[in-house]
Amino acid sequence: MATLILLRHGESEWNAKNLFTGWVDVALTDKGRAEATRGGEQLVEAGLLPDVVHTSLQRRAITTAHLALDAADRHWIPVRRSWRLNERHYGALQGKDKKQIRDEYGEEQFMLWRRSYDVPPPPIDDDDPWSQFGDPRYADLGDEMPRSECLKDVVARMLPYWDSAIVPDLESGLTVLIAAHGNSLRAIVKHLDQVSDADIAGLNIPTGMPLVYELDEQHVPTVAGGRYLDPEAAAAAAAAVANQGR
Amino acid sequence: MATLILLRHGESEWNAKNLFTGWVDVALTDKGRAEATRGGEQLVEAGLLPDVVHTSLQRRAITTAHLALDAADRHWIPVRRSWRLNERHYGALQGKDKKQIRDEYGEEQFMLWRRSYDVPPPPIDDDDPWSQFGDPRYADLGDEMPRSECLKDVVARMLPYWDSAIVPDLESGLTVLIAAHGNSLRAIVKHLDQVSDADIAGLNIPTGMPLVYELDEQHVPTVAGGRYLDPEAAAAAAAAVANQGR
Repeated sequence: MATLILLRHGESEWNAKNLFTGWVDVALTDKGRAEATRGGEQLVEAGLLPDVVHTSLQRRAITTAHLALDAADRHWIPVRRSWRLNERHYGALQGKDKKQIRDEYGEEQFMLWRRSYDVPPPPIDDDDPWSQFGDPRYADLGDEMPRSECLKDVVARMLPYWDSAIVPDLESGLTVLIAAHGNSLRAIVKHLDQVSDADIAGLNIPTGMPLVYELDEQHVPTVAGGRYLDPEAAAAAAAAVANQGR
Repeated sequence: MATLILLRHGESEWNAKNLFTGWVDVALTDKGRAEATRGGEQLVEAGLLPDVVHTSLQRRAITTAHLALDAADRHWIPVRRSWRLNERHYGALQGKDKKQIRDEYGEEQFMLWRRSYDVPPPPIDDDDPWSQFGDPRYADLGDEMPRSECLKDVVARMLPYWDSAIVPDLESGLTVLIAAHGNSLRAIVKHLDQVSDADIAGLNIPTGMPLVYELDEQHVPTVAGGRYLDPEAAAAAAAAVANQGR
């Protein structure tokens, strides 16, 4: 039996501006920092103390992990990072205003890019100001460097890290915290709960609210969907996420 | 040829209050946070980009690493932590006012505890409110758990980590950042520069100022003592450290 805690980063500067972010490495807002700290306090209140933390290579997840663990007095635990936990690459939409894209392309195309399982946005040009081409942290990716991703792509690139890095920690009996992003966490939840390609569209993970799974020896959740430490606040926040861009 | 960057944490809450801190896990002050950020900016200005960071298990070093790397856009590099990079354990003096101890025990004893190479302060009781006995982060230490340390003790417990964790990174050609404490960094400098037991007493490392060593293939500094990125500010700050408790 192992415990897995998923924590989506708090509000970022581009969440606040309603821009498509993807792999652009923006910082948390003050509100996002407070959400991260509150997430750590919830862990303490629930007596859930992570033994190891995994993050993406992106500032908003890294800072969220730092602030939450600092609040939980677990700042000293081992840290592992991987690009495989990054947010979905939003392709040519990165840096664009969500409302503007919706007005320009219409509700149907907008929702297809946001929520379809297998339709990626148009790829980003390597010389686009919001491309990560040439960023040293991705220098080793080679052909795996994405220029746009749908959720299906995120699942595919996340799974090797799940199997090689997270499962071994769970099998060691550690309480594992993953501080990451809306779509990399949806990919994990899809895998854990065996959510269908259609149903995953309706699943929204709120920011800054620990989602806790108890897993059996086959890494199957003992309760499907896990549990939020503050279920009412999580439900309200998830509804707000679903309404972004309106 | 490898590059090693030593960074002492910025001002902590107990530095500001002039208390002996040791293994007590206090936070940075706002001034200390600004120092850490400035340290990261100095790295950028010098074109020194760490590939990996090593920290102690203490909040003031961990936060310093986080803030400095965030300022240098290197927040995403791998992180390693070890108690062997912790500050010197200050024994029964932890939590005590430096000036009060000096007044009570006299200048000679005060300086012996602060600066002698091999005279540790009296050991702390396990039930002292400032003892780390029972802290989960040190649960695996067993007999190695210190109850007081002199600098000689710090050198002895730091060296196994130097050999097993830091040297391999240096031999891989990585630029290595160590974010740690006045005395764990003095232990490293003593080892690197082969400083005598007597001379190390006079060596003070200022807070928040990157100290850079270029090391040859035998891990010998090409310039003894390394170099500060801002030498004048470093000299002034080191003099101020030497005058603490006056």
